[in-house]
Amino acid sequence: QCCRSFHNIVISKVGEDWIFLTILGIIMALLSYFMDFIIHKCEYARKWLYDSSEGMPVLQFLLWILFPIVLICFSSGFVHLVGPNAIGSGIPEMKTILRGVVLKEYLTLRTLIAKVIGLCTSLGCGLPIGKEGPFVHVASITATLLSKFITSVTGIYENESRTNEMLAAACAVGVACTFAAPIGGVLFSIEVTASYFAVRNYWRGFYSAVCGALVFRILAIIFKREETITALFKTNLRQEFPFDVIELVAFAIIGIACGFAGALFVYTHRKFVTFIRGQKRLKAFLQKNRFIFPASVMFLIATVNYPGGLGQFNAGRLTNGEALDELFTNVTWSDPNAYLNVNEKEIVLRWAGPTNNVFLTLICFIVMRFLGAAMATALPVPSGVFMPIFTIGAAFGRLMGECMAVWFPRGIGGQTIVPGGYAIVGAAALSGSVTHTISTAVIVFELTGQIAHVLPCVVSPAFTFTLVLCCRYSVTYCFLCSENLLR
Amino acid sequence: QCCRSFHNIVISKVGEDWIFLTILGIIMALLSYFMDFIIHKCEYARKWLYDSSEGMPVLQFLLWILFPIVLICFSSGFVHLVGPNAIGSGIPEMKTILRGVVLKEYLTLRTLIAKVIGLCTSLGCGLPIGKEGPFVHVASITATLLSKFITSVTGIYENESRTNEMLAAACAVGVACTFAAPIGGVLFSIEVTASYFAVRNYWRGFYSAVCGALVFRILAIIFKREETITALFKTNLRQEFPFDVIELVAFAIIGIACGFAGALFVYTHRKFVTFIRGQKRLKAFLQKNRFIFPASVMFLIATVNYPGGLGQFNAGRLTNGEALDELFTNVTWSDPNAYLNVNEKEIVLRWAGPTNNVFLTLICFIVMRFLGAAMATALPVPSGVFMPIFTIGAAFGRLMGECMAVWFPRGIGGQTIVPGGYAIVGAAALSGSVTHTISTAVIVFELTGQIAHVLPCVVSPAFTFTLVLCCRYSVTYCFLCSENLLR
Repeated sequence: QCCRSFHNIVISKVGEDWIFLTILGIIMALLSYFMDFIIHKCEYARKWLYDSSEGMPVLQFLLWILFPIVLICFSSGFVHLVGPNAIGSGIPEMKTILRGVVLKEYLTLRTLIAKVIGLCTSLGCGLPIGKEGPFVHVASITATLLSKFITSVTGIYENESRTNEMLAAACAVGVACTFAAPIGGVLFSIEVTASYFAVRNYWRGFYSAVCGALVFRILAIIFKREETITALFKTNLRQEFPFDVIELVAFAIIGIACGFAGALFVYTHRKFVTFIRGQKRLKAFLQKNRFIFPASVMFLIATVNYPGGLGQFNAGRLTNGEALDELFTNVTWSDPNAYLNVNEKEIVLRWAGPTNNVFLTLICFIVMRFLGAAMATALPVPSGVFMPIFTIGAAFGRLMGECMAVWFPRGIGGQTIVPGGYAIVGAAALSGSVTHTISTAVIVFELTGQIAHVLPCVVSPAFTFTLVLCCRYSVTYCFLCSENLLR
Repeated sequence: QCCRSFHNIVISKVGEDWIFLTILGIIMALLSYFMDFIIHKCEYARKWLYDSSEGMPVLQFLLWILFPIVLICFSSGFVHLVGPNAIGSGIPEMKTILRGVVLKEYLTLRTLIAKVIGLCTSLGCGLPIGKEGPFVHVASITATLLSKFITSVTGIYENESRTNEMLAAACAVGVACTFAAPIGGVLFSIEVTASYFAVRNYWRGFYSAVCGALVFRILAIIFKREETITALFKTNLRQEFPFDVIELVAFAIIGIACGFAGALFVYTHRKFVTFIRGQKRLKAFLQKNRFIFPASVMFLIATVNYPGGLGQFNAGRLTNGEALDELFTNVTWSDPNAYLNVNEKEIVLRWAGPTNNVFLTLICFIVMRFLGAAMATALPVPSGVFMPIFTIGAAFGRLMGECMAVWFPRGIGGQTIVPGGYAIVGAAALSGSVTHTISTAVIVFELTGQIAHVLPCVVSPAFTFTLVLCCRYSVTYCFLCSENLLR
């Protein structure tokens, strides 16, 4: 009897909110770390294949091209067979679900498996797509399944309002576990998923996001990747005098440009999708031969990125994460007199390219990734848009920063220009403009571990926003339209 | 005719939202800077009086005591005569108004004048009270008046839903202009004032808050107080290895302790208020002689803080801002072998006190400010609770940090302990626990300009919150009760 009462106590405890939120956070952190590991291995394998076939250009090219094509075809085929609902980002659909629409088969185990495996393979092939949006979907499915499991064990009745609260929390966890950014995650999930937000749900999302981010970072320490808990893309920019007031004008210009660029991205993506869908014969052909479309897009992107050819001009060898790390470095690339260590010299050499012109490489990088991201997010695989946009924004900011460094070689206000700071501002502005959110600024700080640029980072979005509000396009809205969920 | 059509265009433009928000932000920034200036002058005058009467202990004591008593009496009398609605914080009342209750005379010019002048004088006398809550009220009044003014000029009809949106934005501006923290300001205003928040209002508050914070910081540059735009309480802590994972346990303990301390603060404040109100004779006496209550509380606090006497043991000479600055320094106070510059030596000497014991001074500081803040916020003057609580939290965190530094003289994980980081975590945890918000963590980052401690800063509130939710007390709720607005 004692044993049974103990059993009852345990079961009633398990039904409590905070236990549920803790478990959810931990599961998502484990999943996120595990997926990152696999993605990293895929990227590593591709580079290893490329490097080990050095001297045989044809084989090298074929390996560079074929490896990702196989992966993307597997991803697209797997998702099609197991769970077609796993295609795309998932944030627009979560928005719809949280508003009360029931989407069948959207939060099932099949979709979860399809999403996780599809995402690992599609990200592993080096496409300019991200993990954030799909991971919000993954977290929501996990929360639903976990909730069902606990309900069946404890015998507590399901409660629709509680389910919705848990889903909102899951969205926050999804973002938090991707970027190790609990605060930004909570805010981003609010902005993206809700139109009216119940403040009392706030702490649920927050608590769960903290658990998730904490475990996610502790895993990195356990597996000896990090020494202690730090930011994911740690920067080391000048703090005492981050920027002069006059530079705010440049930051405002970045904001305006990013506003236009964001609208342009959404427009390009939509045009591409409607073009593919509009051609009836092409559409029928592609639906019959499912692998042709992803394979050809992958072929195009991989050719452009081929490090032995065109990729030299657009830093094509770099993955999103690596590019971001290098764009945020505290070095002025265009300064020939800069004192650099070995590591930094390598970075500058890579970005100088064969033309020995940093600006050209940056422009090519921006254009190629821009078009690549607009195409890749239209593929029938799980894909997010945040990370590539973030990287493109960082590159654009870096470009502006390098230009400023050239125009004002002695700096403004007695101190030299810090192009890395411009990269941070650009990343915040462009991702804010495309996703139509402000919380990206918070994510930027949590990602980089520095907050000295807080005012520029919010001035840019403030300008972006007035523009975006005129255009009235946001990427979520556009996806909603193209998925025929709205309208 | 051309002139008239131009006139019409100008007027129709002025009625637009973003013009309104810009003007609001700029006005509030100017007001905030102006008030800070006056408060600073008052504090300086008091110290100048004290220092210039060196050698005459009785006169020194009298000046130290009388100057603030005169100020507080003026403040209390002025507020009573001009606008009794200006008493207290204003956040609870704003919460009530935003929920649709009409509070008469609460958003009028009289109240604005009473609040601004009352706040300047009550803060200038060195009480442990803050400017944030009242400034939210000031911003709301300004927004209302500005809205009325524009309506009367342009002839646009008033619109209740628009008024509410503007009020919500004004709350954000109020916080942003106090701390130069636009993101934290927006979040804090959401958490404190709303129960259901319309996400589309978000960008209004954000835009206005950015304008406010920007102008507020630019003013500091124009008047040569700062060299460039930086954080208000800029810290300079170690970034490469901010803390070891094991130290998270200590941060969690801070969180739990702060959860209890926050509940204790609310309890103490409430007991004090109900005690004063409960004694019928005392209450009648105090209502007749309006100056006795503020004067006696001020006398008590000033005596305890008297730098020539008891104040030596609790760093009584320091204002809230100065204390905060020193608590956040990147120096281990208890380390006798630390290499310090002149400035840092002075700080350590001040906190060591006559007993030459940093811990004793810190404990005295915490206890005295704690009781002082609980009493001072009950005075019939405009007063906020955030800043003193924030300082007390920082002191508590510093205390823990110094203890850790003594217990682990060789550090944890190969690196020494950084007590300044503990101070940051303590400040976030205690202010989060008292105000029942999470956004305080964001405010902390924006105030200090460093985000390396993001995970500890959110782990502590996460622990605090589970506690606070059990106690179900928050300071806003308590004030609502004691003002008979709720219940």
